Amino acid sequence: MAGEQSSGTFVTIPGESESLRERHAAKVERITEFEPVGIPSLPGSRRIEQTADPVKYRRAEVVLSFPLENIGLSLPNLMTLVAGNLYELNQFSGLRLTDIQLPSAFANAYPGPQFGIEGTRKLAGVFNRPIIGTIIKPSVGLSPEETAALVKTLAEAGIDFIKDDELIANPPYSTLDQRVTAVMRVINDCADKTGKKVMYAFNITGDIDDMLRGHDVVLKAGGTCVMVSILSVGLAGFTYLRRHCQLPIHAHRNGWGAFARSPWLGMSYIAYQKFWRLAGADQMHVNGLRNKFCESDESVIASARECLTPMLGGYTAMPVFSSGQWAGQAPDTFQALDSVDLMYVAGGGIMAHPGGPAAGVNSLKQAWEAATSGQTLENYAQNHLELQQAIERFSHL
Amino acid sequence: MAGEQSSGTFVTIPGESESLRERHAAKVERITEFEPVGIPSLPGSRRIEQTADPVKYRRAEVVLSFPLENIGLSLPNLMTLVAGNLYELNQFSGLRLTDIQLPSAFANAYPGPQFGIEGTRKLAGVFNRPIIGTIIKPSVGLSPEETAALVKTLAEAGIDFIKDDELIANPPYSTLDQRVTAVMRVINDCADKTGKKVMYAFNITGDIDDMLRGHDVVLKAGGTCVMVSILSVGLAGFTYLRRHCQLPIHAHRNGWGAFARSPWLGMSYIAYQKFWRLAGADQMHVNGLRNKFCESDESVIASARECLTPMLGGYTAMPVFSSGQWAGQAPDTFQALDSVDLMYVAGGGIMAHPGGPAAGVNSLKQAWEAATSGQTLENYAQNHLELQQAIERFSHL
Repeated sequence: MAGEQSSGTFVTIPGESESLRERHAAKVERITEFEPVGIPSLPGSRRIEQTADPVKYRRAEVVLSFPLENIGLSLPNLMTLVAGNLYELNQFSGLRLTDIQLPSAFANAYPGPQFGIEGTRKLAGVFNRPIIGTIIKPSVGLSPEETAALVKTLAEAGIDFIKDDELIANPPYSTLDQRVTAVMRVINDCADKTGKKVMYAFNITGDIDDMLRGHDVVLKAGGTCVMVSILSVGLAGFTYLRRHCQLPIHAHRNGWGAFARSPWLGMSYIAYQKFWRLAGADQMHVNGLRNKFCESDESVIASARECLTPMLGGYTAMPVFSSGQWAGQAPDTFQALDSVDLMYVAGGGIMAHPGGPAAGVNSLKQAWEAATSGQTLENYAQNHLELQQAIERFSHL
Repeated sequence: MAGEQSSGTFVTIPGESESLRERHAAKVERITEFEPVGIPSLPGSRRIEQTADPVKYRRAEVVLSFPLENIGLSLPNLMTLVAGNLYELNQFSGLRLTDIQLPSAFANAYPGPQFGIEGTRKLAGVFNRPIIGTIIKPSVGLSPEETAALVKTLAEAGIDFIKDDELIANPPYSTLDQRVTAVMRVINDCADKTGKKVMYAFNITGDIDDMLRGHDVVLKAGGTCVMVSILSVGLAGFTYLRRHCQLPIHAHRNGWGAFARSPWLGMSYIAYQKFWRLAGADQMHVNGLRNKFCESDESVIASARECLTPMLGGYTAMPVFSSGQWAGQAPDTFQALDSVDLMYVAGGGIMAHPGGPAAGVNSLKQAWEAATSGQTLENYAQNHLELQQAIERFSHL
């Protein structure tokens, strides 16, 4: 593992001098062995030796360190270093990158989140509680005018944040330009009346020129957030957008499951999100407790904690809780995270609330009031109708 | 699967009208069921129903079609559509994208390979046989001058193609500028003497500005190829580079194993390489027969065939065979592929040849002469010393 990704190959070759190894070799800092197992985690591994005993597959947590000089301060080349050809080596029957720690020099090369938690809060005008949000659904097919009508309902319901689904970016039936015009008219009108401007994350995912132009359209219309599907765009494109960007970037991680769902392969979000925080993500999806996906609550909370943990002296991003969220997960989320610096994005929990969307938004605010004041939802619901209705409607789903 | 990635959610919601569904829903074209299994492929799946019988996990190949209108002509948004949140859904215990077919309209949006097979051959000056190449090793640590000295040896040995390792791009000990200067001096000198200019794939992987500048440095110095680690850079950055680029792009797929090694997760290279051909890859890594990685020979050949199979009326890329290659795999490679339109990249097969690098290069040319003329290596080796030496040295490894 160390040799393949630094100075070595499997055989010593001309030019691989002692001094080259000393200067460029990766070091094995620690190996913590786990119980061996009788079957390989994934196919394709080579059996090193044949013995009469049953084959055992050894497992371990391995800590490696690499000379910074080997790659320089480059996130794409860092990715190749820590998550490149290794996964295909037949010396392993499984390999997962669980964490990564970077030297402070990276802070000189990558400016990181431009807005982060503070900047997002200021633009949304929400302090001392989570930012309550929702996603436009149906995810595809609504015209710009239908989208704007839905935004009007949600804005009047007092919501803080709305986002495009990741499946809509700039399709011909609702181009980004048309959608921005229609939606921002509603949001700006509402802001004129109430003083509260809803933050809308317009999905500008696309090729670079499209993203830059999309960003400018959103900015010019008075929008306060853009969204990007980070895996689809990639690190270089995202970094480029960040340097041009004047708005918070909402980082959507769709596709992460492709290299994370197998416990024996790929990369944890603990490691992965560090790349994107350095590259400039202000808001990062972390899934949610009791979500509709396959991720455990422990993993969700670990990801969210990591977003809130400074690295290189800063670079915190706002974790975005989403997927199957309603009032019910607020106490557990708060207890596990010990913070209200998060975005809490609910779909059905708002739109399907028996009292309507405004009641849905209120039920979420009430749930977080209960959570942060240490009361149970049931107690707090006795004097808060919308929360009571939410519990009756959603707690058995 | 179809609903989540198009018009539907798990419950019918306001706005999801019949006409919206008709226009935007994905269609299930075909389901081919396989044998059910008793254990889930990956953890995290939800058991739909409890019965007295043992739980069975149903498996199938599913063919879906999506309205083009849903995303428009955008590769990043296509990626989100076909390889997004799906992987995390707990309705599945595994999910793999095996192929994708695109409507011809994509040809209007993405120019594809600028050089492809013909353009690569012209620049390398190699026709009617594979382009024979090698990788600079040790992968890291050589100074620009040491690299240039190695290139001199290889150029004098008559090699067609040399590439940087993916682990070296623009590090402080061998910056791209320094390396290009040192290496191209040797290559241009050699070309002046012999008329043959070795194609060198300089690894320009990095942030966008670095890649564009790196490309310009290579072009100005008379270089004829640039290399990019496609997963580390991402689709948007790669597409942007392509539009700026005046040289063939050598696409390195390091990291692909992270979402491909598990047979039950991620994406086949059959599907994946189509994105990059559209985006403009001229040369694409496909691993090699009897490689040092975990991929089967069948998978390698399927990938290579796909690179050579036109899509949307063109967009063929030159498959790059690499990893553990020497003369020995030439006959099987030719027989399986029925083409010499490939790059055949050997490390030890050239540098560790008992007769030296020139003999190593010759042994590979001879092996392909044998393969294409239908002779066995052993027969052909009777009159070809370098091939004979290669067989003696490498056939038992």
